Amino acid sequence: MTDSIKELQAEAEAFRDERNWKQFHTPKDLAISISLEAAELLEVFQWSGTDMQVTEKQNKVKEELADVLLYCFLMASAENLDIAEIMTEKLAANRRKYPVEKAYGSAKKYTEL
Amino acid sequence: MTDSIKELQAEAEAFRDERNWKQFHTPKDLAISISLEAAELLEVFQWSGTDMQVTEKQNKVKEELADVLLYCFLMASAENLDIAEIMTEKLAANRRKYPVEKAYGSAKKYTEL
Amino acid sequence: MTDSIKELQAEAEAFRDERNWKQFHTPKDLAISISLEAAELLEVFQWSGTDMQVTEKQNKVKEELADVLLYCFLMASAENLDIAEIMTEKLAANRRKYPVEKAYGSAKKYTEL
Amino acid sequence: MTDSIKELQAEAEAFRDERNWKQFHTPKDLAISISLEAAELLEVFQWSGTDMQVTEKQNKVKEELADVLLYCFLMASAENLDIAEIMTEKLAANRRKYPVEKAYGSAKKYTEL
Repeated sequence: MTDSIKELQAEAEAFRDERNWKQFHTPKDLAISISLEAAELLEVFQWSGTDMQVTEKQNKVKEELADVLLYCFLMASAENLDIAEIMTEKLAANRRKYPVEKAYGSAKKYTEL
Repeated sequence: MTDSIKELQAEAEAFRDERNWKQFHTPKDLAISISLEAAELLEVFQWSGTDMQVTEKQNKVKEELADVLLYCFLMASAENLDIAEIMTEKLAANRRKYPVEKAYGSAKKYTEL
Repeated sequence: MTDSIKELQAEAEAFRDERNWKQFHTPKDLAISISLEAAELLEVFQWSGTDMQVTEKQNKVKEELADVLLYCFLMASAENLDIAEIMTEKLAANRRKYPVEKAYGSAKKYTEL
Repeated sequence: MTDSIKELQAEAEAFRDERNWKQFHTPKDLAISISLEAAELLEVFQWSGTDMQVTEKQNKVKEELADVLLYCFLMASAENLDIAEIMTEKLAANRRKYPVEKAYGSAKKYTEL
């Protein structure tokens, strides 16, 4: 099993290109698809009330989370973004927005800290 | 810059744990957060009509896509899922659902192929 | 205060037309906007864990729910749909999908009943 | 066919209460359901590219739009909100945020006007 982002991204691109689907992958339609897959993931928890674990549905979680990730990787391909780079940059930005001394143990948004 | 999924995931977990946020990371609330970040990514394309490129907003795309990815990585952590494994399995399942000879150049859903 | 759907819809259309915004109201972009406003409504409940009431945020709920409704009314206008009619028809369809004797007290999806 | 919001809302509540579903209708789970139905509406336009009309799918639009509206009405019931009132107030607020002389013919967000 690879642990390489670039290898996984290349596999997703190969899947897309074997089917000649790049023509459909506008950033707008990819953003829609990411939202739709995120909704399918969220659907697992619909009406679960306070039952936050939903253990019996882990297979569904696996599949839908993988779908969100695959479309995110393909969005990065469509926009020529380096996945590891944008994630690392965002973590750095979040560290500045949520300094440990203010954010420790708090679920507040940075605008309310 | 790392290319390792596990290293990036460990960095996201460290960010979370330094702030003592694991307590909030129920799968249900993480699924909500993935959906909300996906919506912020989609917002870049609101009212863009047929203008599918939206080049002037690439910084926003970068940041919001990174947010979706970070929450997906943290959902995998909360659910003890191996990211590379679930993506590889899902690609294999998609290959079966969308065989090249049927899916080539078609944007139809597998249920309509 | 009116109780008429058609009057409220006409007010929403007047708001749109005074600003010459009908040109942007493609069904696709309206569907995106409905999703984005739904996400803003959902954001009120982000990280609320099992605290399902979130009473202190009722103003935000009011505003975001109204936004979803306004875009739904404008989608109906763009697609020439009669709001009361489609809601009445959908309730009738749901009554068939969820017969009382099967669905009573159950949160299951009709496909699982 | 009624044109009354309160009558339609009462019908939606009757549907809910005949099935003893009020127990599931926490605001958080209703907000999730509104988001999920909004995603199903948006799915009609997935991969439609610049083809904004999607005329062949109007039945699906009808059904999914009706679902979003029904959950919005039930959210109003759960939160004791007057639908006509919150829509009228939001239209008034939007008139202030988007004055005609600034917003005419522009798709910009009020923060960018």
